[in-house]
Amino acid sequence: MYKSLKEECYEANMELDALGLVIYTFGNVSAVDRKNGVFAIKPSGVPYESLKPEDIVIVDYDNNIVEGDKRPSSDTKTHAYLYKHWEGVGGIAHTHATYSVAWAQAQMDIPVFGTTHADHLTADIPCAPPMHDDLITGNYEHNTGIQILDCFKDKGLDYKEVNMVLLGNHGPFAWGETAAKAVYNSKVLEEVARMAQLTLQINPNAPRLKDSLIKKHYERKHGKDAYYGQGC
Amino acid sequence: MYKSLKEECYEANMELDALGLVIYTFGNVSAVDRKNGVFAIKPSGVPYESLKPEDIVIVDYDNNIVEGDKRPSSDTKTHAYLYKHWEGVGGIAHTHATYSVAWAQAQMDIPVFGTTHADHLTADIPCAPPMHDDLITGNYEHNTGIQILDCFKDKGLDYKEVNMVLLGNHGPFAWGETAAKAVYNSKVLEEVARMAQLTLQINPNAPRLKDSLIKKHYERKHGKDAYYGQGC
Amino acid sequence: MYKSLKEECYEANMELDALGLVIYTFGNVSAVDRKNGVFAIKPSGVPYESLKPEDIVIVDYDNNIVEGDKRPSSDTKTHAYLYKHWEGVGGIAHTHATYSVAWAQAQMDIPVFGTTHADHLTADIPCAPPMHDDLITGNYEHNTGIQILDCFKDKGLDYKEVNMVLLGNHGPFAWGETAAKAVYNSKVLEEVARMAQLTLQINPNAPRLKDSLIKKHYERKHGKDAYYGQGC
Amino acid sequence: MYKSLKEECYEANMELDALGLVIYTFGNVSAVDRKNGVFAIKPSGVPYESLKPEDIVIVDYDNNIVEGDKRPSSDTKTHAYLYKHWEGVGGIAHTHATYSVAWAQAQMDIPVFGTTHADHLTADIPCAPPMHDDLITGNYEHNTGIQILDCFKDKGLDYKEVNMVLLGNHGPFAWGETAAKAVYNSKVLEEVARMAQLTLQINPNAPRLKDSLIKKHYERKHGKDAYYGQGC
Repeated sequence: MYKSLKEECYEANMELDALGLVIYTFGNVSAVDRKNGVFAIKPSGVPYESLKPEDIVIVDYDNNIVEGDKRPSSDTKTHAYLYKHWEGVGGIAHTHATYSVAWAQAQMDIPVFGTTHADHLTADIPCAPPMHDDLITGNYEHNTGIQILDCFKDKGLDYKEVNMVLLGNHGPFAWGETAAKAVYNSKVLEEVARMAQLTLQINPNAPRLKDSLIKKHYERKHGKDAYYGQGC
Repeated sequence: MYKSLKEECYEANMELDALGLVIYTFGNVSAVDRKNGVFAIKPSGVPYESLKPEDIVIVDYDNNIVEGDKRPSSDTKTHAYLYKHWEGVGGIAHTHATYSVAWAQAQMDIPVFGTTHADHLTADIPCAPPMHDDLITGNYEHNTGIQILDCFKDKGLDYKEVNMVLLGNHGPFAWGETAAKAVYNSKVLEEVARMAQLTLQINPNAPRLKDSLIKKHYERKHGKDAYYGQGC
Repeated sequence: MYKSLKEECYEANMELDALGLVIYTFGNVSAVDRKNGVFAIKPSGVPYESLKPEDIVIVDYDNNIVEGDKRPSSDTKTHAYLYKHWEGVGGIAHTHATYSVAWAQAQMDIPVFGTTHADHLTADIPCAPPMHDDLITGNYEHNTGIQILDCFKDKGLDYKEVNMVLLGNHGPFAWGETAAKAVYNSKVLEEVARMAQLTLQINPNAPRLKDSLIKKHYERKHGKDAYYGQGC
Repeated sequence: MYKSLKEECYEANMELDALGLVIYTFGNVSAVDRKNGVFAIKPSGVPYESLKPEDIVIVDYDNNIVEGDKRPSSDTKTHAYLYKHWEGVGGIAHTHATYSVAWAQAQMDIPVFGTTHADHLTADIPCAPPMHDDLITGNYEHNTGIQILDCFKDKGLDYKEVNMVLLGNHGPFAWGETAAKAVYNSKVLEEVARMAQLTLQINPNAPRLKDSLIKKHYERKHGKDAYYGQGC
């Protein structure tokens, strides 16, 4: 059972590695099966070079293991929380990619400096503040999910449009309609983070992209009047 | 028809990818056929790994599709505008290469700091300012072409000598006598952008290259007394 | 004799190269055999592409060559000193990896800025000060071992928890239960060093990770209540 | 004739490319035959992927072509000048490697910040100032040789110990007993340049390496009491 779900999850995890977004086991991707209310996730601490599709673990939204011999990712509860509360999410990726982590450690949102960013989202990429101590010592990974949702509520963001977040002092989570799309968004985030860091090095007073250009580029690729791509 | 034009365009697009100047679909190259008044361009949003020569779209200078089943690049109108007004241009490349974008986002010209730059052009690499809002909401990609020509007019630059430009907050366009040369110029721009960023990190007061050296290096490679290369 | 020890040492040295942590011969790894009181180490100045398992040299804790035709690494006495005084160490790696060296040259500890760091150790990564002149002109590599132990004593650090150090103006040493683990720690150090450098570029006032998060992440992976990995 | 000299030169040029020190044709290596008073050098503007041993050009110290159908590197006169005046030099390499160029464009010597640098040379890596205008408009490449020798005279440097230089606003030249050693020194220079740039980013007040450590590390690898390597 769940063979194709495991395959999808496996492929997305391997792509994370191929894209240079992880070293060793510093990342994980999950893929959801909405009909059955379960998701597939990378097992904890298994290196990519020895990972096999049958190692993938199937978990429900309350973190019960449904299928699999291995212990799921230590971040599983965060994935579960997001799937439970954001029904449009089909896949989630977490990495410790270098530039994304650098912004998270700087505890700063990534400003929308250019069209590469605006082609994907209109908002600054949010950086959620570190949690309060009692939440950290409590159900940490579950509370990480709460922290992400609180951040989106506070900033008035919609997870369907803004499909990535930085956790202060930690690193990025990204999501999408599929696990592959979550990985794609992780790569875009890393590249945008790198461009933004370099932009500030060249010009510390670099201006934010103006609203008309943000809107133009986002709408070229998204929404009913989008004209980018082959329309399929 | 246009088989060899499509091949030339296809090869140049693949080279863009091989040189590390693009991730995913963030770039496009076109090649012109001056005799027939058409150009070949990458289809919109097609990944490089699945791109085939027969996917390339043939378009005229007024953006009419002459041949091809796919939708051409969303930046097609910018290419068309440049081909229409700059008769000596044989190929055009657009990328979101990291360092080029960083300078574009910083909204700064790249100063000619050394001979690597002067081997290719004598001017600072111009950064066109972002467009006015009504031009953005209007015929955006067409107006991007106007913006580039206005920038060259304002700065007194000749497109035959300065074969690259940064669009403020967006990224680079480069061109040349062939599509392959446009890709070459995109790579040179990216490398010069990286060198210039690092130069400013080491010495924020780094001086511009002096005129005699700019002239010497440019003329080693260009013009009637050039002595670089095999003279063919 | 010592065939498997040499193999272990050889594999770990080759991994150092494969991970991009060394150029030319700028690094060395050793593996200890506690039962016999000897360790295997890379021969001095032998390029990785021509290194063979039988080139590995076997040395005792007093730097006597026990087996091998080649001269051992010029850093052998430092390895010997650490093995002699730190009984829990099974392997040691030394590199000139770029970002680790940059922090060593800056003579600064690497602050714990995030969870990537805290997943591995709770302290700032220590930078030992350069030695006094008489220690440098004396038994230099032996004294380098003393310098590392003095640094750990001064800062109240435990080598079993903090398994890496920077030598001011020189570069990193890392260790672990095996040679492979020492190489792993060298790679983690390099990545953490890179993340920290970028963090300071983005936000020179980036705060240190708070204690509750340091503790949480370290204990997820280490100690009796660890729940990361497959528990084997 | 000169078959093995051409082979040596060819191999060294290909290694320059393999080490990532050049893009396109931005570099050249030569190898000298002291007995016959000639040297082999890369032809001008020939891409590495199509370079063949028989393309290599043989030139004497007065820039006369002795053998070969192709035009030699545009930098040939600089190579010739150095071979003529520095009799101990066996090979010379010139690149536009990124970090080396960045320091050259910053017009700054690279301070000896650490042992990676001191393992190879005890002095700061010198940056020769740009030439006077009349020297640039005159016999430029020949005068570049003069500029390098003047720089060494002014700073009291010995080319046998300091086997690399930056030309202000241009890039690096490195040399050695063989062409392969010149390429090695080019790679070391690039890595040291990168480490030094990062060191200053982390700590703008990073101190120069102290004299005792410079001496210690240099003498570990060079001179009569050297104990690095296999002594052959």
